[in-house]
Amino acid sequence: ANSILSSFGTTIFETMSRLAQAHGAVNLGQGFPEGLEPADVVARAAEAVTAGPNQYPSMMGIPDLRRAVADHDRRFYGLDLDPMAEVMATSGATEALAACLFGLIEPGDEVVLIEPLYDSYLPIIRRAGGIPRLVRVEPPHWNLPRDALAAAFSPKTKLMVLNTPMNPAGKVWGHDELEFLAGLLERYDAYCVCDEVYEHLVYDGRRHVPLMTLPGMRGRCLKIGSAGKIFSLTGWKVGWVIAAPEVLAPVAKAHQYLTFTTPPNLQAAVAWGLGKDDAYYHGLAAMLAERRDRLAAGLRTVGFEVMDTGGSYFITADFRPLGFAGDDAEFCRHITERAGVTAIPVSAFYQGGDVDRFARFCFAKTESAIDEAVTRLANYF
Amino acid sequence: ANSILSSFGTTIFETMSRLAQAHGAVNLGQGFPEGLEPADVVARAAEAVTAGPNQYPSMMGIPDLRRAVADHDRRFYGLDLDPMAEVMATSGATEALAACLFGLIEPGDEVVLIEPLYDSYLPIIRRAGGIPRLVRVEPPHWNLPRDALAAAFSPKTKLMVLNTPMNPAGKVWGHDELEFLAGLLERYDAYCVCDEVYEHLVYDGRRHVPLMTLPGMRGRCLKIGSAGKIFSLTGWKVGWVIAAPEVLAPVAKAHQYLTFTTPPNLQAAVAWGLGKDDAYYHGLAAMLAERRDRLAAGLRTVGFEVMDTGGSYFITADFRPLGFAGDDAEFCRHITERAGVTAIPVSAFYQGGDVDRFARFCFAKTESAIDEAVTRLANYF
Ligand SMILES: CSCCC(=O)C(=O)O
Ligand SMILES: CSCCC(=O)C(=O)O
Repeated sequence: ANSILSSFGTTIFETMSRLAQAHGAVNLGQGFPEGLEPADVVARAAEAVTAGPNQYPSMMGIPDLRRAVADHDRRFYGLDLDPMAEVMATSGATEALAACLFGLIEPGDEVVLIEPLYDSYLPIIRRAGGIPRLVRVEPPHWNLPRDALAAAFSPKTKLMVLNTPMNPAGKVWGHDELEFLAGLLERYDAYCVCDEVYEHLVYDGRRHVPLMTLPGMRGRCLKIGSAGKIFSLTGWKVGWVIAAPEVLAPVAKAHQYLTFTTPPNLQAAVAWGLGKDDAYYHGLAAMLAERRDRLAAGLRTVGFEVMDTGGSYFITADFRPLGFAGDDAEFCRHITERAGVTAIPVSAFYQGGDVDRFARFCFAKTESAIDEAVTRLANYF
Repeated sequence: ANSILSSFGTTIFETMSRLAQAHGAVNLGQGFPEGLEPADVVARAAEAVTAGPNQYPSMMGIPDLRRAVADHDRRFYGLDLDPMAEVMATSGATEALAACLFGLIEPGDEVVLIEPLYDSYLPIIRRAGGIPRLVRVEPPHWNLPRDALAAAFSPKTKLMVLNTPMNPAGKVWGHDELEFLAGLLERYDAYCVCDEVYEHLVYDGRRHVPLMTLPGMRGRCLKIGSAGKIFSLTGWKVGWVIAAPEVLAPVAKAHQYLTFTTPPNLQAAVAWGLGKDDAYYHGLAAMLAERRDRLAAGLRTVGFEVMDTGGSYFITADFRPLGFAGDDAEFCRHITERAGVTAIPVSAFYQGGDVDRFARFCFAKTESAIDEAVTRLANYF
């Protein structure tokens, strides 16, 4: 067995979902939405399955989806993309990430990462031969340590991975921070893989700014998007990568051997969905902001100290005020088994595992699931 | 960009499909079926999309599919599998292959391969750090050179990849050949990744024998299956890997970071479809044998020398008798542009590219497409 991959456990999201199921817990762990699926997009997919074709589409994605992604990014960010040369559909954002990393990294290349980080980044980077250089932001404020970030770059830096809005931090990266990153990318002639799957899930009047829109960044950024997150349909596994043609080319080389292509019917429904009016996108964010507030208020009532969440599906909560003695992994297991509510330990997002006093709760759930979870926690503590 | 992946071109299947489209050619190149989709399986998928859930299923696949795969392999091969521990759903056989290879290979491991080979094997093996050891079978008889195969094994051999029925050769590996392979695997303590996606597409009373069913092979083989090929629905990208729990574990580690999971609704429809009665499976093979005969006869009329095809979607045909002066890549381009019929050059399946007098034609098409292709070729030559 490969020693790098074997050194990693089963992904924490799967582990906690299995535990939730075994204990009949309300699952606020794994980041998938409930009750938010747009019926019209689902109906389109069912129609497209029935009508066909059901055969391999182009490995780059169906033209309708590539055009729809380009139109979407023009509408929201003013990007001017050639859909046939600069957009590639993938089997979800996870595959998009793997294709970017396997396609760009040469063994020995350094890769700058910011903790907390999504759990596929490190294993894939290391399997691809990259050498991770970790910088961290921490609760409660998740402030960027600029000196540490600058020190992580070197002439060997091939790329960095940026996640904004950031999972689990809920941090929406600000324009000034992005400008600082852009300066480093220019100085070290590096790429940035921009995991922007939560691009529409930003709250309280904040705006998501793709790093790609900053001066000089158009040819350095690979922007990853996710229909799973935009349409609350995580099971469809439709994602995409946007990049300049010469940057996308090596990523397509990886993609063609990782999955080759993605179901054309689901792509067609997503293409149609991306054309929805602004009210859909704003409505989604408004709905999720409400659920965030509902869950945050509930967790505060229980006694958690709740961090601010500017974007994403997630709230980070400090459980120390509850008087629980163990670490976050123990806490999350404990509340699943005893209180019937599942969360994700935030230490899973740090290689050192030392940020161990926080639990991540997903609020992209039905109001009744949120209320039930809060009631269970309140009864238990 | 990664130098290994960049050294490979765009996959020949995509390249030829694009060329076919540009020239309005009948596409007998890329191996996808036309007109064979079972309406009931398609209807099930549409229903499952409508009914939901549309969220991440377990990374191992939905339990119904894992059970259906185990039942299928018990019915056809007498295998006794624990569905929850020995079956994993993947985003098509391409991802299954990538997960097996990234999950098992340690840099420096040797991997034995038999040419002609499917075009994702070499790039993924090399990207995973493996060292390919190539052995070849050749048209017209595709006989296994046993001494060369034995010589390709060494104490450094981690695994081999076997494709039976074999693309593009149409070779269905015989019991004696499989026994010879099994002996080598035992002697060198190696695994075998068994790409058996054409398992039901065997003709003229031949029987597909999974290497896994031979004595001593249960714990050495990773058997890859494909709903795309069993149900003529290549666009769905539902595949699976079967292996002993301790062999599947490292492959699951790769899978969880390559795609994580596969659309649950498509999995559900495939699970239902796998329960179809024997008549379905035999009918599929009978229908394809008819199309094979139809295309073979037509190509012979045109003047090709047609190799025997025992399994798969493909006929290999020698075009020398037609008096064409160039190599197979030129021939396939030529007939696409001039005759309006697309085939795949067989040299694309050999690293050296030196087996260059044969074109691969896919017969999993409608009868009218086959007839139209033959007519066009006859008119041209
Ligand atoms: C692929 S499962 C993880 C889903 C997710 O994005 C999360 O929970 O952080
Ligand atoms: C993934 S496209 C290739 C399809 C196929 O199996 C073939 O044509 O050989």
